[in-house]
Amino acid sequence: MKARLKKSLAKFLAVGLVSSSFLTTQVRADEGMWLFNSVPKAKLKSSYNFEPTQEWLDHLMLSSVRFNSGGSASFVSSQGLVLTNHHVASDTLYKISTAEHNYNENGFLAATQSDEIKTPDLELNQLISIEDVTGKINGAIQENMTSQEASKARQAKMAEIEKESLDKTGLRSDVVTLYGGGRYHLYRYKKYTDVRLVWAPEAGSAFFGGDADNFEYPRYCLDVTLFRVYENGKPAKIDHFLKMEPNGAKEQDLVFVSGNPGRTRRILTHDAVEYQRDVAMPRTMNLLRRKEVMMQQYALAGPEQQRRSRDDLFGIQNSRKAYTGMLGGLQDPLFTASKKRDEADLLSRISQDSKLAPLKKAWDQIREAQTKRREWLTKQASLRSKIYGIAETLVLMASEDSKASGDRLREFRASNRESLEQELFSEAPTYEDLERVHLADELSRLAEDRGGNDPLVLAALAGKSPRQRAAELVAQTKLMDVAERKKLAAAGTQGIADSKDPLILLAKTMESEYRKAHEAADSIEEQERQAYAKITEAKFAVGGDSVYPDATFTLRLAYGKVLGYETDGKKVPAQTTLGGAFEHETLHLNKDPWVLPKSWQAAKGKMKADTPFNFVCTADIIGGNSGSPVVSRDGAMVGIIFDGNIESLTADFYYTDNVSRAVAVHIAGVLESLRTIYNAPKLAEEMGK
Amino acid sequence: MKARLKKSLAKFLAVGLVSSSFLTTQVRADEGMWLFNSVPKAKLKSSYNFEPTQEWLDHLMLSSVRFNSGGSASFVSSQGLVLTNHHVASDTLYKISTAEHNYNENGFLAATQSDEIKTPDLELNQLISIEDVTGKINGAIQENMTSQEASKARQAKMAEIEKESLDKTGLRSDVVTLYGGGRYHLYRYKKYTDVRLVWAPEAGSAFFGGDADNFEYPRYCLDVTLFRVYENGKPAKIDHFLKMEPNGAKEQDLVFVSGNPGRTRRILTHDAVEYQRDVAMPRTMNLLRRKEVMMQQYALAGPEQQRRSRDDLFGIQNSRKAYTGMLGGLQDPLFTASKKRDEADLLSRISQDSKLAPLKKAWDQIREAQTKRREWLTKQASLRSKIYGIAETLVLMASEDSKASGDRLREFRASNRESLEQELFSEAPTYEDLERVHLADELSRLAEDRGGNDPLVLAALAGKSPRQRAAELVAQTKLMDVAERKKLAAAGTQGIADSKDPLILLAKTMESEYRKAHEAADSIEEQERQAYAKITEAKFAVGGDSVYPDATFTLRLAYGKVLGYETDGKKVPAQTTLGGAFEHETLHLNKDPWVLPKSWQAAKGKMKADTPFNFVCTADIIGGNSGSPVVSRDGAMVGIIFDGNIESLTADFYYTDNVSRAVAVHIAGVLESLRTIYNAPKLAEEMGK
Repeated sequence: MKARLKKSLAKFLAVGLVSSSFLTTQVRADEGMWLFNSVPKAKLKSSYNFEPTQEWLDHLMLSSVRFNSGGSASFVSSQGLVLTNHHVASDTLYKISTAEHNYNENGFLAATQSDEIKTPDLELNQLISIEDVTGKINGAIQENMTSQEASKARQAKMAEIEKESLDKTGLRSDVVTLYGGGRYHLYRYKKYTDVRLVWAPEAGSAFFGGDADNFEYPRYCLDVTLFRVYENGKPAKIDHFLKMEPNGAKEQDLVFVSGNPGRTRRILTHDAVEYQRDVAMPRTMNLLRRKEVMMQQYALAGPEQQRRSRDDLFGIQNSRKAYTGMLGGLQDPLFTASKKRDEADLLSRISQDSKLAPLKKAWDQIREAQTKRREWLTKQASLRSKIYGIAETLVLMASEDSKASGDRLREFRASNRESLEQELFSEAPTYEDLERVHLADELSRLAEDRGGNDPLVLAALAGKSPRQRAAELVAQTKLMDVAERKKLAAAGTQGIADSKDPLILLAKTMESEYRKAHEAADSIEEQERQAYAKITEAKFAVGGDSVYPDATFTLRLAYGKVLGYETDGKKVPAQTTLGGAFEHETLHLNKDPWVLPKSWQAAKGKMKADTPFNFVCTADIIGGNSGSPVVSRDGAMVGIIFDGNIESLTADFYYTDNVSRAVAVHIAGVLESLRTIYNAPKLAEEMGK
Repeated sequence: MKARLKKSLAKFLAVGLVSSSFLTTQVRADEGMWLFNSVPKAKLKSSYNFEPTQEWLDHLMLSSVRFNSGGSASFVSSQGLVLTNHHVASDTLYKISTAEHNYNENGFLAATQSDEIKTPDLELNQLISIEDVTGKINGAIQENMTSQEASKARQAKMAEIEKESLDKTGLRSDVVTLYGGGRYHLYRYKKYTDVRLVWAPEAGSAFFGGDADNFEYPRYCLDVTLFRVYENGKPAKIDHFLKMEPNGAKEQDLVFVSGNPGRTRRILTHDAVEYQRDVAMPRTMNLLRRKEVMMQQYALAGPEQQRRSRDDLFGIQNSRKAYTGMLGGLQDPLFTASKKRDEADLLSRISQDSKLAPLKKAWDQIREAQTKRREWLTKQASLRSKIYGIAETLVLMASEDSKASGDRLREFRASNRESLEQELFSEAPTYEDLERVHLADELSRLAEDRGGNDPLVLAALAGKSPRQRAAELVAQTKLMDVAERKKLAAAGTQGIADSKDPLILLAKTMESEYRKAHEAADSIEEQERQAYAKITEAKFAVGGDSVYPDATFTLRLAYGKVLGYETDGKKVPAQTTLGGAFEHETLHLNKDPWVLPKSWQAAKGKMKADTPFNFVCTADIIGGNSGSPVVSRDGAMVGIIFDGNIESLTADFYYTDNVSRAVAVHIAGVLESLRTIYNAPKLAEEMGK
């Protein structure tokens, strides 16, 4: 359930002060989420006697796909087939489902190509090239600028570079901040926005064992789904796609993972880690549990409410479980002690070098930034609700559009407009009852965060209790209607000024406080960027070339070997089998969530029970890597990442290879189940061709 | 599910700064939880033309029973039968259940008296007398004492009065703080500690509709259970018990509720309400959701874990739902505005009277006390875990016992020793896996509250992560064994000093911080007591005799009429029927939690479908009232309280009779189901005789 972590992070932390990404040093074993333009070739050669050619790397990069909604995937046929996880697909399955057709629950198979179902708002990205633009970006910053000025100048330069690149190449162009501000690279993507559903198994097969088995191993999940990308109404012609290695990988084999890890924070200084441990993470946990309980309560109302809430609920539970593991890791005094020791070591080394010594003040800057984070933590002015988010976007967009692209809030820059509109004008359904519940809870949370006497809270509540106010807003808004959104967007600032829509009015009420919090966050992040750039310099100077940047939801290469492990004195095998799924079901008394779908029961006699199903490897992954292809030395597909074991949950802050494992669906299991369980031999046939 | 509120409060707030109880004025309609020695006779006469005689009141008082574990009940036969709610009984049902016999889930009926099951640690209280000791208590306080000194002197005097009374009468003797410190009454109880289970329905019948229907109406719950009290190994001979009114009450009938409301906070000043709204309640909500999610996660492990966690989980969910309603009420700007207005009105009235005017400073004292509450909120030093609680009690008891009874922490005073030991040496099972989960979570919470660098946190974790440390503590402690507890308790301070038990060592580590926080809480509460005593004086002066004290989990008389209501434009009838339960099941597609037990299905043809089942009335109740008998003008039983509707959840802070209702099981439904569903005609026969 890795991608969910990413997705839920995106959802839940979007409003808060989102950390940037950082770097680390002291790489051991199979650690590392490497940039495709900076692969540790010497290390691969010495550890595994493997030397990737540029062609090998380019092919893998071009065969890799990013789900912009939060996940990874790969091209697996010349006819545009894209393989990802069911749980990466699930928010799309949810959006195209209705009370009558629940594709998430019951699965789907397109009988012919013309039956493939068009999805409402998916954007798939194929990375085409990477260019270092660090010099250009840093050239925009003057010594005497305040953090806020520097942040604005930096963003303006980024927007300019992106716009220029978009105009020149027609490709989606994103400047990515790496090493927490130490480097800036321009990533160019080909976008696919006509994406159709080809096949999905039942949730009971993809998520067999449910929340209970999530992050556990051994596992038995067919967590895969097939889409197809189209261009001009026809299946897109794909040059770079992965061949299949139908026997997959076996224990001790070297494997590679090419995907988009969402966020790690391994570079964090000791002070920043303490802030996470004592303030940010406990707060996030409270938020996640709040939403989990709220969604469960909503789902009690009936089967339809259960369907409507299921995707979000699972995402939240997944994040909550992941965060529990992370926080547990941070609260381990051994970790904090080792962090302190490493830091003292680095500081003592740079003290001995008069050129590096001035970098020491970076640590003080990070400490100060944490204090500011504490101050701003509860002063956000937004509401985590889909329909409010739409109102907020419309209000902000109107004023942002009257500025030059480089001066706008980053999400409103010209080069991002298509992606923004893809989401804003999505025809995916909204549900009044669900929005009411979300809004009531968020109004209540706003009152808790800012205090019931806060003027913004009083204005937002307009003299009513959170529940009454939410009911009124949802009853009166017209923003559920996409046409209405388009009309408002087209009418610009005047349209917003004239609007009587209560949600638009509310977003306008909150706008100035929203901007204040946003600017504060920008300024804090800039301070951290500048400090982490110095820390990066120190680490490069001391650590040599064994330096990879923290995850940034951009394409990375990880590697490791297929390997079992030991936990609580028990040996855990590297691999499970299709037949094992039935044993696992029996062991759990065939009770929900351990109920294999009817399709499995029907195929029990037909399938080869000893077909490998799931396996684990030591590659360094995290949320966002869900759906990443796992490939062999030959670059052929052997599996698809879908989870990490519970011991790997500390990966946000540190990697270990003792018992931490990435969990993948074995390609043999995918092919065998397509043939024998899902009556889709043609799809199995098409894969790799 | 009212009593659960009380119980979970007791559990969850025991560690924090527990509010005392307060009073209110401006009583309207059927508002009020009246003292049995101060019943509003004139009001009853004028509203309902009813004048209770002293005999009527005494009989009802003596027929009423308090479950010391948190709930209400009544004697219903001369042979010691006690009728309460299933959800008041459920923690006992849980304690006497095993993996093989799940009495909570499947119900129980003793075939003969000798089959009645002895419960491990129930204490039932029958209120015998009330005596005003305000003068004695306040006489112990000198003008020049600090809050801390005054608190100690007050507690010493209370302990002295209790001890004297216990020695003289042999009765449990509790000095109760009323009107937030305005009055002190001595309550004397006869205790029953040999309590046996006679009959309980299945959870599916008692809690039909589960968490979804909880606090909703119309309802269809047989939320009742029968115990029998014994003395000297024989059914106790009971002089005062309730007669049955087999036809119960009908719409518009005057009814009385005699029970033990746990806590209300209607006297709170505006500042204290804001503290609750912005600080205390959001924190409690976070804690409840934390435990809810934790227990759900634990229950995923299998059916036995589900059984072990069910009672606590339901209690937590019940509290969470109740608190959601309460906080929503507090966040309603109309409520705060009316609170402010009433306060301004009272202040302006007492300003006009030079004798009363000095009382105004009480409001400032309350404001200051809230600031101190904020400061101490996260500085508690205890862990919410059953097994840690035992260690903590043993450690504290050893040193407290070396002091005079009056100088001890209140729970260790001589007059409370029996009740304390009843709990400490209970043979109710403890489960290692569950204790591990609780302890790990509580160590994590301690680290969140105090920060990971806090010396106490570091000492408690002993260099390990919360999970590892909890596993170690549970594996090595011997306190699961009651004999070990008794040995340690008997060995006194030397026993504690010599103990190598890791939980005893941990409790010793935490002891001084625990005492510091406890003293701070005492001092804050004393400051509030003195202030609320002044506010009470002001309210009595202005409000005349229409003043009842806030709830204190002591016996109160409420009254009102059986009455339907209107919500969302729909009329809600006052009463449901047994047959309606089947319709309700069908309406919800016979899906969990709307599945009536087999016993019901089997009896469907036999029972009279139009028998009244549940009903609502306007009486003023709150958590702790669960199990309270509802009686007619004639003092005969017409029903038994088990819930309040969702609109009544603000009752902690204010009463309304517009749509707020108390929900009760109709006595006709109880008798009919005993006869036709549970094959217990003899029990039905015995009731009232």
